[in-house]
Amino acid sequence: MWQTAPMSELIPRYQTGTPQNLEERFAHRASGMLASEIRSLFAVASRPEIVSLAGGMPNLSALPMGMMASVVHDLIATNGAEALQYGSGQGHPKLREQICEVMALEGIRANADDVIVTTGSQQALDLISRIFIDPGDVILVEAPSYVGALGTFRQYEAQVVHISLDDQGLIPDALRAGIESVRASGRKIKFLYLIPNYQNPTGVLLSADRRTEILNICREEQIFVVEDNPYGLLGFERPSPNAMRAEDSENVIYLGSFSKTIASGLRVGWALVPPSLKEKLVIASESSILCPSNFTQMTISSYLADQPWRDQITSFCELYKVRRDAMLESLEEYFPASATWTKPSGGFYVWVNLPPEIDTKLMMPQAIVAKVAYVPGTAFYADGLGTWAMRLSYCHPTPERIREGVKALGGVVHQELARRKSGYELS
Amino acid sequence: MWQTAPMSELIPRYQTGTPQNLEERFAHRASGMLASEIRSLFAVASRPEIVSLAGGMPNLSALPMGMMASVVHDLIATNGAEALQYGSGQGHPKLREQICEVMALEGIRANADDVIVTTGSQQALDLISRIFIDPGDVILVEAPSYVGALGTFRQYEAQVVHISLDDQGLIPDALRAGIESVRASGRKIKFLYLIPNYQNPTGVLLSADRRTEILNICREEQIFVVEDNPYGLLGFERPSPNAMRAEDSENVIYLGSFSKTIASGLRVGWALVPPSLKEKLVIASESSILCPSNFTQMTISSYLADQPWRDQITSFCELYKVRRDAMLESLEEYFPASATWTKPSGGFYVWVNLPPEIDTKLMMPQAIVAKVAYVPGTAFYADGLGTWAMRLSYCHPTPERIREGVKALGGVVHQELARRKSGYELS
Repeated sequence: MWQTAPMSELIPRYQTGTPQNLEERFAHRASGMLASEIRSLFAVASRPEIVSLAGGMPNLSALPMGMMASVVHDLIATNGAEALQYGSGQGHPKLREQICEVMALEGIRANADDVIVTTGSQQALDLISRIFIDPGDVILVEAPSYVGALGTFRQYEAQVVHISLDDQGLIPDALRAGIESVRASGRKIKFLYLIPNYQNPTGVLLSADRRTEILNICREEQIFVVEDNPYGLLGFERPSPNAMRAEDSENVIYLGSFSKTIASGLRVGWALVPPSLKEKLVIASESSILCPSNFTQMTISSYLADQPWRDQITSFCELYKVRRDAMLESLEEYFPASATWTKPSGGFYVWVNLPPEIDTKLMMPQAIVAKVAYVPGTAFYADGLGTWAMRLSYCHPTPERIREGVKALGGVVHQELARRKSGYELS
Repeated sequence: MWQTAPMSELIPRYQTGTPQNLEERFAHRASGMLASEIRSLFAVASRPEIVSLAGGMPNLSALPMGMMASVVHDLIATNGAEALQYGSGQGHPKLREQICEVMALEGIRANADDVIVTTGSQQALDLISRIFIDPGDVILVEAPSYVGALGTFRQYEAQVVHISLDDQGLIPDALRAGIESVRASGRKIKFLYLIPNYQNPTGVLLSADRRTEILNICREEQIFVVEDNPYGLLGFERPSPNAMRAEDSENVIYLGSFSKTIASGLRVGWALVPPSLKEKLVIASESSILCPSNFTQMTISSYLADQPWRDQITSFCELYKVRRDAMLESLEEYFPASATWTKPSGGFYVWVNLPPEIDTKLMMPQAIVAKVAYVPGTAFYADGLGTWAMRLSYCHPTPERIREGVKALGGVVHQELARRKSGYELS
């Protein structure tokens, strides 16, 4: 009945190339799914000779691999039948309890029943979008904001409206004005998405007073707050700020992640949600991935139960602080006086504003030639702004490489400014 | 600046309970996200005293845990910096090569560039839905079909149209009639979703002739075929049938999974797609989860590279065959003559048709009392059909427990038939 030779050898191929009328066959939302123009540059940027100040990859050099190897070995040896099996769609019950202990460090009192474990907090963002966003709905985000969130909101065909921030974080008056203007246009606002701690891409920390003010505004206006907090425990000046969720358990959807405090390769994040949202979120997650990996969840659970994870986070903070210092010092040394940048007290990123005549996307190829990479500012705006800016990450390279990279980049910026001044335009 | 006491102790909570106007604030697609009525029964069904013929959990008793523990230990010890780091959105390059070797067992010749690794093949289903389905679009599926696929299509607001199958699989003439009738109503068909090998929930194997005929119909009609193949290597009579993708590389989207051949807890599946679909699928996946777990991907990659995985699959097949036999024998012994059922030659499932006066959803509580659980047939139809049927899984319990469970269930069916005959209706 069954042929042993591949049928493809026996039967002529009907067509090669693109299926007919392909574009019409996609969903409407898929028309916006295009590879970004900087993707090919990033492929180049990952070469070892380039100092990458582009990626947000956590630095795992402080993580003892022998210990991690023992953790996963013992997990499978003693509990493999559970770790390698399907699990709960909502996530492993013990890990959800432990997640509540982790969140308690930022003042959150939560019930494990309200925690949903996800494949990284990116999946939580996707699920939140899925249950809230109809095409044309408005999502309020900081200006600039996390590129991955903007991409997700775009896939759900939301309209992103940016709200200004300064060195104290999102500006409450700008938020009020934004809400008013969106509502005057008759559009629906679904939620405010923000990263209060060591924001991606600016590194800015939202001040305590503003947290309260923003929470009050959003409650009054019946706008959910989506608090994305991957970097909250990576502050260089202790103690950590309280999460916004610590102040408001009814109107805040909190997203957390182990990607920056343990290991990103495990892909374990979570959402802590008001009880009224939980059921839909679990159903959305089951439809999306059936269940998160028991194996990676239980790896984290074992690690949290048996290893000095608070000390490990302290080690990570020390490692990042040294790199932050290297970056700020070399920016001071090598960048022109006309540039300004943020001074993060935690997290991974510095945001650099250059004179407006510079277009950082057009400048990328020169940077690659000078063996340094960054992310152009436009990636963090849904509206084409940010041409004058760039995000620099200090998380991954050594301090020496950071100095080398910032020096090279400073040279590129100086050159570019001189070229603009002399009236010479790039082809 | 930062309070060390939780702010929640200082600030009165604005509201407890459900946020105002919550239902209006959700997306339209979320209105269908409701917990199924049988969910609470399944919570009961997972108790140890119940013989569960309900779940599709693979049986891991044949997997040597000492070996798996060594695999993960050595992976982290020698390659932890990569395994615990973010990876490629498309999936780990080496694993994608190995996936092509696995697919070659079913006659597929593929390029690793066209493989996208996902968090279980459920995520592949979600991504395919995302790039193709606009609300109201039609998806053709077997009658009955996989409950998780129906759930995903529902979230994307597709209209599911069932096409009949018999013991040789999906019926080509029914497919032709279905396409004609949908098109006559002016609706758009986006793809045909089917499980050709040991189908979930019926266990039926699609015959070789029908594979070719169905491929020809779909090519002519410009309808993509989504071939979901988690059970293809779990046939009890070798050699395995060729995949439909082996015959058609341009119009078939192939979904694979390691959940049933290695371990479901790793959550590693994949899609093999025509090159023209790859970019959108990768972008959709990045928006959904950023990247799949390097750790679980590299665990599978190490296992495939260093362990006798073909022999392991043979062990799994032997284990399932014994259980299939136990189920078919005890159905013969304990079920009424008026019932019929499929005789699977692979996979996990038997589909039982009972006399039409029986409603298997209403019968569930009695089964639970008799300490046995199954999935009512309606779960596998989008249109309310299947009240007379049930899916029985033989994959997980021991043969003894399977006999015990089928005996108990046969008793419940006999009782229910007698009750219906005597005119007594359940309250």
